[in-house]
Amino acid sequence: MNDMTALPIALFDSGVGGLTVLKALRQCLPHEDLLYLGDTARLPYGTKGPETIVRYTLLAARMLVGRGAKMLVVACNTATAAALPTLQEALAPLPVLGVVEPGARAAAAASRNGEIVVIATEATISGGAYQQAIVRIRPEAQVRGRACTLFVPMAEEGLMHGPLAEGLAHHYLDDIFNPALTAPRPDTLLLGCTHFPLLQTALQNVVGPQVHIVDSAATTAACVSERLAQTNLLRPADRPGTSHFMTTDNRARFVRTGSLFLGERLHNADVELVDL
Amino acid sequence: MNDMTALPIALFDSGVGGLTVLKALRQCLPHEDLLYLGDTARLPYGTKGPETIVRYTLLAARMLVGRGAKMLVVACNTATAAALPTLQEALAPLPVLGVVEPGARAAAAASRNGEIVVIATEATISGGAYQQAIVRIRPEAQVRGRACTLFVPMAEEGLMHGPLAEGLAHHYLDDIFNPALTAPRPDTLLLGCTHFPLLQTALQNVVGPQVHIVDSAATTAACVSERLAQTNLLRPADRPGTSHFMTTDNRARFVRTGSLFLGERLHNADVELVDL
Repeated sequence: MNDMTALPIALFDSGVGGLTVLKALRQCLPHEDLLYLGDTARLPYGTKGPETIVRYTLLAARMLVGRGAKMLVVACNTATAAALPTLQEALAPLPVLGVVEPGARAAAAASRNGEIVVIATEATISGGAYQQAIVRIRPEAQVRGRACTLFVPMAEEGLMHGPLAEGLAHHYLDDIFNPALTAPRPDTLLLGCTHFPLLQTALQNVVGPQVHIVDSAATTAACVSERLAQTNLLRPADRPGTSHFMTTDNRARFVRTGSLFLGERLHNADVELVDL
Repeated sequence: MNDMTALPIALFDSGVGGLTVLKALRQCLPHEDLLYLGDTARLPYGTKGPETIVRYTLLAARMLVGRGAKMLVVACNTATAAALPTLQEALAPLPVLGVVEPGARAAAAASRNGEIVVIATEATISGGAYQQAIVRIRPEAQVRGRACTLFVPMAEEGLMHGPLAEGLAHHYLDDIFNPALTAPRPDTLLLGCTHFPLLQTALQNVVGPQVHIVDSAATTAACVSERLAQTNLLRPADRPGTSHFMTTDNRARFVRTGSLFLGERLHNADVELVDL
């Protein structure tokens, strides 16, 4: 009997985006307790430099782990890309999983022609973590990264569908997915930002039905499940899992925007305001 | 002879938006030296709670004033709305000017029918500072506030013109400026965020040519000029004024986005990276 199984899985994100990972985890592992921290006081991480991101992420991770956790999921692409190795070293032997590797693996497996496009924040794309991870797994792949900065605030405003969301997707993606181009057309679009699953329908309308969209939130949840099973850390199925939410600023906004990402109504009482 | 005249005017903003105020100051006061700090490591302030904004603003202001300054301009609507009285008290006798009062005065003067709309970030609108300031000056005015959160990242991406910018303006403003409405139509639109002057053409296209758009950056510069003259703090016209820029994170991004706001090319060497 391993006492660790009773501890929650901790999730960290700069804001509410990581709630798409939490939602996927709930579906995949309904008996696990989940502890979520959104560092909303300092978001967005996506436009910040790598040293700043590492500093903020370490601070948040130590706080979460201090509450007791059997695993840390960095449910933020920017933080994973910038800080995962540092976190794994600092928190060892605690298992620390990011969202980049699972997403990259799924995209490499999904593509037939090896032409893959990754969309993410400016920091994630310019850091090149997804591009490198895919090429490590599938060396002949042609990977293009595209920063889609405005999708994040767009999703947080609830503008996930309709002409504005699709207009912005055209603005970012038309030169890559234009069928008139002579270059081989990508067949796989990897959502390298936890906000982007909310825009999936608009994106599919713009890139066309033949393009496979890979959601790194769902693939990360599958990877967490696999890892817990391998290490005998799965919680017994004696009761439904619980979720506890923490935010570093503006609880009302976390409740409002978080409800969009979670697909269910959050309440003020569900969310704890913490200071890092 | 007052030695203070030789000191620079310090400007503070959460990011690059305040550069529209700096640009207006340069036009209005070409012999003044200007010292600008953009707290890009912690932007945006617009979605944060008031206590957090006050804490960040005080930290930045003390750093700027520590370098020597004859006046502090809070070139950020969110920080002005949340923190101006605290700053004025903490830094007395240094004159501290914000952007809210000058913008409110200009809007109150510009409107014929007293129907005024203020657009700004979520924090500025929900704080009500503009609405209150206008009604103090013109008690019979009907003031409506509207949070236009997405205009900020839109302007920073350089999407100031064209169908996306106008589409978003329609999304935010059509229910207020719709000519089919029976309610009295507003004749004045106050840009209560330093980012919004970049969108002025798109906004004018959407609200129509008969609506007067008041830019709080330009009205703040006029107010600074007036105040320096009153207090005998104007710099002698012996040489052109200089500008020095500081940012708390990601110098490359400050250079790129700042150039958009300033309307001239910034270089890496012009911008100093500082830690607060």
